[in-house]
Amino acid sequence: MSERLIVVSTDCHAGLPIADYKPYVESKYHEVMDMAVPVQVEMMDKASESFLIKEINDAWREPIRSELTGAWDYKQREKMLAQDGISAEIIFPDGITEQNTPPFGAGLGLSPRQAVPELQWAGAMAHNRWLAELCANDPARHLGVASIPLLFDVQQAVEAVRWCVDNGLRCVMIPTMWLEHDPYHHTKYDPFWEVCEDLGVVIHFHSGPAPHPEYFGPEWPTVDNSEQLPGAMGAYVSEVMWWLYRPLTFMIWGGVFERFPRLKAMIVEGGTLFMIPPWLRLLDHNYTDVQFSAKLGDFRSHLSMAPSEYFARNCGIGASCVPRADLDIRDVIGAELIMWGSDFPHPEGTWPNTAEYYKQTFADFPEDAGRKILGENAINFYGLDRNHLAEVAAEIGPTNELFH
Amino acid sequence: MSERLIVVSTDCHAGLPIADYKPYVESKYHEVMDMAVPVQVEMMDKASESFLIKEINDAWREPIRSELTGAWDYKQREKMLAQDGISAEIIFPDGITEQNTPPFGAGLGLSPRQAVPELQWAGAMAHNRWLAELCANDPARHLGVASIPLLFDVQQAVEAVRWCVDNGLRCVMIPTMWLEHDPYHHTKYDPFWEVCEDLGVVIHFHSGPAPHPEYFGPEWPTVDNSEQLPGAMGAYVSEVMWWLYRPLTFMIWGGVFERFPRLKAMIVEGGTLFMIPPWLRLLDHNYTDVQFSAKLGDFRSHLSMAPSEYFARNCGIGASCVPRADLDIRDVIGAELIMWGSDFPHPEGTWPNTAEYYKQTFADFPEDAGRKILGENAINFYGLDRNHLAEVAAEIGPTNELFH
Repeated sequence: MSERLIVVSTDCHAGLPIADYKPYVESKYHEVMDMAVPVQVEMMDKASESFLIKEINDAWREPIRSELTGAWDYKQREKMLAQDGISAEIIFPDGITEQNTPPFGAGLGLSPRQAVPELQWAGAMAHNRWLAELCANDPARHLGVASIPLLFDVQQAVEAVRWCVDNGLRCVMIPTMWLEHDPYHHTKYDPFWEVCEDLGVVIHFHSGPAPHPEYFGPEWPTVDNSEQLPGAMGAYVSEVMWWLYRPLTFMIWGGVFERFPRLKAMIVEGGTLFMIPPWLRLLDHNYTDVQFSAKLGDFRSHLSMAPSEYFARNCGIGASCVPRADLDIRDVIGAELIMWGSDFPHPEGTWPNTAEYYKQTFADFPEDAGRKILGENAINFYGLDRNHLAEVAAEIGPTNELFH
Repeated sequence: MSERLIVVSTDCHAGLPIADYKPYVESKYHEVMDMAVPVQVEMMDKASESFLIKEINDAWREPIRSELTGAWDYKQREKMLAQDGISAEIIFPDGITEQNTPPFGAGLGLSPRQAVPELQWAGAMAHNRWLAELCANDPARHLGVASIPLLFDVQQAVEAVRWCVDNGLRCVMIPTMWLEHDPYHHTKYDPFWEVCEDLGVVIHFHSGPAPHPEYFGPEWPTVDNSEQLPGAMGAYVSEVMWWLYRPLTFMIWGGVFERFPRLKAMIVEGGTLFMIPPWLRLLDHNYTDVQFSAKLGDFRSHLSMAPSEYFARNCGIGASCVPRADLDIRDVIGAELIMWGSDFPHPEGTWPNTAEYYKQTFADFPEDAGRKILGENAINFYGLDRNHLAEVAAEIGPTNELFH
């Protein structure tokens, strides 16, 4: 007999069209927001010109234009989740195609590049306020990832985490790149890790950030240098995953998960999964290769476990739109660490073809592993209300026939 | 019957004690050199404190102190090569332990960080002049790697390459990190690639450079921040190889080896070899994964081959002090790309225990593969004079008994 599955997407996105954030921005920033938004819109236009081929994007967007409002409209979002069979979702900022991103560069990645700290905080908190309202529609189904510009002020970040928890948010995103700020092995961040551990807040890194000016030219996105910089996109897509893993390289070596053993961190939409085992193998190699490293002094005795053991205990992988080939190496990675995501509503996501994706990807797949990757791993990792989600799934979940 | 092997070390170092470079520095820079050298010495002292445990280093150095002069004294160097059974060597700058490095930060890595372009050029050319003299003792055995601060001035670099060839040097090293300068996919560097291809000059990247201030603190090496930055060395050793491969990521995607199909490049002392196959697999993945990348536009049609094919055709791997475990995956990497190095006179090198290293590493190893890795690959890659080297090896080479 067929049974409906609880599917959790660990990679969904939501955000208001940028100008609509105004009511959520503190009024003292309204004037500067009116000036800043047109500039940010122009930059987004330029950036998307170099990142999305217009014809392909327009062809994708045309038939689903009205449904893309699901990135901010709750009723439309419920329909999308029902169509996709998704019972619960982790929600990052930025719908992208509709320019629905928080003002002041407070969107995905939270880049400190050219950011004004006070304004990025203002934009981030505006998004967090709106996100808390969106998720309050059904907190067991919608886990919003709050934006925390940690690099600028650790104490402010600690207070923001408390605000998030008080307002029903228990996931946060911090910058993937620190640029000239202190990296995450610095002990100054300990109060932040501590409050996240204490309050059960999961830290997230979402793929995308990388040193764009190196690939695309110092004046990117305002100047198109593609003639002088052939293959820039190839270099970018070949490095972006390294920049995503990098915060964990620093956190693991820095002993963050040693001092805060219940802290949890997710890396999301990192592309192909086959680079995770070699990355961890390299970290372990440097942890165990005593002969080589003796002359470098002791950089290990503060760690009671090998790097890959912290990763397995404390971390999770948001495997957005994961292809079958990557799932076939699940046991090398650790099948329980892999959590599927739809990446709604990004053009590279499975929506609006998620039903077809399920069939193509999971046909003749072991049901037990498939259930874990599609939902059960996320239920455990995030501590979701399984009973409530089972009720939702009974209405909208795909059936286990997809494994046959 | 036993037979002596031609061994080529693709990773040796040579350099005068810093102050002794003065006669090789243009006289107009002597005054500023007198001021700069004490500062550089102090920085080297501080840096080596954080990189080399003094007790371990001193214990290593004590019995071989007089022999370390082989880093600049030709007679002593000949003895070392004979002891090690090395018939030919590729010579990078920097002996390190004896502070034998060119002035003005023109040593290994050629970092543009805080460099004064005119002075770094002056220091680099001083080293190149001295190196040309050293190698002139027996050009078939000693291949000096000239230092070329390419980032600052492409035309000056082109002229420097011509000077090198005129003076018997046909290997060059360019900066591994470009920082705020243009990366190596920029077509502005084409005249440099062109002159190297035309004159048969091999480009080298040597491991070591990485963004040290990120690991060790913004004031490194003058301020010791190790208390606030636990595990900094772990993060460094886990990333340094990525920074070494990075120039090739940009050169391959940039189509450099497409436009200059006879250009050759070496990555040297990158640590464990097991990261090379996943790195190339990732590049190939991004080259072939059409579905994902269609929306990103065309970043491939300027490349007629997959990235790993350029690597196999145009690149070589300086496998310094390579352990047996890495040699066991030689066929995954491409056995003909792997070229052994002794790393003389660095403390992590095989010298003064190279004979013992040969036995430990190559016992019960296939002789054909062993001969290639120890010397024949380098003879082919660099186009060395095999007959001359065979004569040298007949006197000093280790015998093929080491494979039994």
